[in-house]
Amino acid sequence: MEYEKILDFLEARRFKQLKEELANYYPVDIAELLEEVEDKQMIILFRLLGKEEGAETFAYMNSDLRETLINALTDSELEEVMDEMYLDDTVDVLEEMPANVVDRLLMVTDEDTRKQINFLLQYPEDSAGSVMNVDYIALRPDMTVAEAILKIRQVGINRETIYTCYVTEKKKLIGVVDVKDLLTSSDSRTMEEIMDPNILYARTTDDQEAVAGKIRKYGLVAIPIVDHEMCMVGIVTVDDAMLVMQEETTEDISIMAGVAPNEETYFGTNVFQHAKNRSVWLLFLMLSATFSGLVLDHFSSVVIAMPVLNAFVPMLTGTGGNCGSQSSTLIIRGLTVGEIQFRDIFKVIFKEVRVALLVGTFLSLVNGIRIMIMYQGKMDNPGLLALGLGITLICTIVMAKTIGCTLPLAAKKIGLDPAIMAAPLITTLVDTGTTLIYFTIVSRMFHLSV
Amino acid sequence: MEYEKILDFLEARRFKQLKEELANYYPVDIAELLEEVEDKQMIILFRLLGKEEGAETFAYMNSDLRETLINALTDSELEEVMDEMYLDDTVDVLEEMPANVVDRLLMVTDEDTRKQINFLLQYPEDSAGSVMNVDYIALRPDMTVAEAILKIRQVGINRETIYTCYVTEKKKLIGVVDVKDLLTSSDSRTMEEIMDPNILYARTTDDQEAVAGKIRKYGLVAIPIVDHEMCMVGIVTVDDAMLVMQEETTEDISIMAGVAPNEETYFGTNVFQHAKNRSVWLLFLMLSATFSGLVLDHFSSVVIAMPVLNAFVPMLTGTGGNCGSQSSTLIIRGLTVGEIQFRDIFKVIFKEVRVALLVGTFLSLVNGIRIMIMYQGKMDNPGLLALGLGITLICTIVMAKTIGCTLPLAAKKIGLDPAIMAAPLITTLVDTGTTLIYFTIVSRMFHLSV
Repeated sequence: MEYEKILDFLEARRFKQLKEELANYYPVDIAELLEEVEDKQMIILFRLLGKEEGAETFAYMNSDLRETLINALTDSELEEVMDEMYLDDTVDVLEEMPANVVDRLLMVTDEDTRKQINFLLQYPEDSAGSVMNVDYIALRPDMTVAEAILKIRQVGINRETIYTCYVTEKKKLIGVVDVKDLLTSSDSRTMEEIMDPNILYARTTDDQEAVAGKIRKYGLVAIPIVDHEMCMVGIVTVDDAMLVMQEETTEDISIMAGVAPNEETYFGTNVFQHAKNRSVWLLFLMLSATFSGLVLDHFSSVVIAMPVLNAFVPMLTGTGGNCGSQSSTLIIRGLTVGEIQFRDIFKVIFKEVRVALLVGTFLSLVNGIRIMIMYQGKMDNPGLLALGLGITLICTIVMAKTIGCTLPLAAKKIGLDPAIMAAPLITTLVDTGTTLIYFTIVSRMFHLSV
Repeated sequence: MEYEKILDFLEARRFKQLKEELANYYPVDIAELLEEVEDKQMIILFRLLGKEEGAETFAYMNSDLRETLINALTDSELEEVMDEMYLDDTVDVLEEMPANVVDRLLMVTDEDTRKQINFLLQYPEDSAGSVMNVDYIALRPDMTVAEAILKIRQVGINRETIYTCYVTEKKKLIGVVDVKDLLTSSDSRTMEEIMDPNILYARTTDDQEAVAGKIRKYGLVAIPIVDHEMCMVGIVTVDDAMLVMQEETTEDISIMAGVAPNEETYFGTNVFQHAKNRSVWLLFLMLSATFSGLVLDHFSSVVIAMPVLNAFVPMLTGTGGNCGSQSSTLIIRGLTVGEIQFRDIFKVIFKEVRVALLVGTFLSLVNGIRIMIMYQGKMDNPGLLALGLGITLICTIVMAKTIGCTLPLAAKKIGLDPAIMAAPLITTLVDTGTTLIYFTIVSRMFHLSV
């Protein structure tokens, strides 16, 4: 995309060339361009777009930009945009706008569309119903291939996808026909004969992430959405599924890092909102770190008697925390992609404990060698210190990995998002455990009174 | 899926019913079933599958299972599987198998396919060329709509997708025609007239993640892959793109948790491999934690003079680490989805510093109140302690967030994967900084000699 060229045309007010130039770009790229320029320029550029292109670009814009644009457009311009948009995009737009803007948008929408919009708005956020599109191709079971193709020719142009068609009888979904089957079957065969009655579908109330997962798992282009009576109400297409997956991944990753997720992008979120999203967890974790502080306080006489012991605390808590977050992350990911279920809990623990013993032994040996080299001649008995640290490391790692794999599974079981059991929380828990294990072991080994 | 039913049939050796039952399931579900049963049962079940179903199921199996199966099948059975598989799946299989198995697989493959396989195997791993499919529908520019539909009817049945067709002239890609355009245009129009010459494409050498990102961004069903002369060599379909995205996300998340990524699943990786994947980073981080240990050692006289100071170290390092990983995670995600670029570095730092000041002030206040309540009457000057901790918290959080947002951007700039700059590494770095800041501040405030 040649930003400079467009900006030059814009400044020179060469609108004819500008219009021609814009016609070469994809709506998603134009939406990106509009985010970069000033509001005034944005509105001029938007007005130069074709009807269809404008509506598609609008669907890709962020909500701040959309609001600015809506306030600048006339009613008739707005009506054009609303007419051209796919209904699922319209609903997305409406869900994000303030009430007064929604009123204005609905005012310029025709009666029929308004009814459909209200129908879609009733579905809870993040449900299949809220992301589905109600424009799909429905065929009757007694239609012939020739008739079906004729129908696609007539109505297909306004449908988001024609690749898969749905055979319905009294609105009930009874089969699917791929456009490939239509093209490769003889004209006189009926839909009932060529359709696949073995249908993959989802319900309006299903979670959007689960629906996206189904589309991915079975490699579908679209999945039909039915209500509780198996009546077909819409479809979710693969491009929407990809966006849902990306959103959900971003959400998971945010939660795993201890950030309250939001739907806006990094730059789209202001400083106060960022601070708010991050403070909740930080506050909780800061206060829970008091516990490991109490442990340290409890063993302060040990530290005074043998100050060198204090120097190993960061290494031990750091290693414990990292081991725990390795396990929790792998388990959370396994749960997300559906490889791991709660019933695998003992299999997982058994595996993690064995991994922990191997890793613990290896790290203890390396650390032992380091201690012998660094403290030889500088203290009485470096061997005993190396041994104490080695035992602590093994115990800590086994504890950390067990906690790290158990908590996400337990969260899943009780209906919480496993992602909140990630690195930060587990690190804080493991910190306290590690400090306790360490000082208990060394105070006994070195006969230090607590 | 009714596992019990299938296992019952299997045990009762009711193979006819079993075959009928299996025909109801999707290949991806059958592959999951095969992973659950014993090897012997797996081989029996596989032999009961239809030709096409067997090949598809094979494509979904994990590599261990595939190897067991290949060793059990006769040459002619294997030939059937290889004949039915799409070429991109065949190449995937071959890339994962040991040399002796590859030899056997290639032996049962016909000359023509073998040539195509070798052609695909030349592309580097993770390139578009290595994931593309060479079966697509190419049309000539002078073909009419009627002729094009006839061609799809003849060859379409063996193509992974017919939804998008490609217009080529002397192998050069000159336009795309969607099946929707074919069905909604009159029979006598030519491809040249109805095609879209504005083509989105990728090159064989492009990274598979970038290609998947393009498919997602533009909502495509497939993208054509061209060589350096713009000659068309294959397509990457949206279902492959979704798998690539999932793989790459898992890889990113693993690296961010300090685990060396591998292509196998959690259960598909044995204990030794798991231990190996996790030890490298743990070892590095354990040894770098020596630095914060050295800082503690340096300030040991301060700790002896005022042991209570030690109790706040976990809270401070924990908060610093969490703040740093919040920032690094958000930036890494922004880089992955393409929202943030290196050129945004100053914008990002400016934003993070302001967030850090807000968060730091808030946490300092809460912590100050806690100190006043907990230590009132138990020590001389709790206010001074609260002040010292507050200043430390603010400095630490600003430092942690600056490091957390700068390092991933720097990694990206020098061509490293930003994900390796995630939580574990940043926490280790921030730990040292935090301890240093803390003891420097409090030793001066309380006039303690180091």
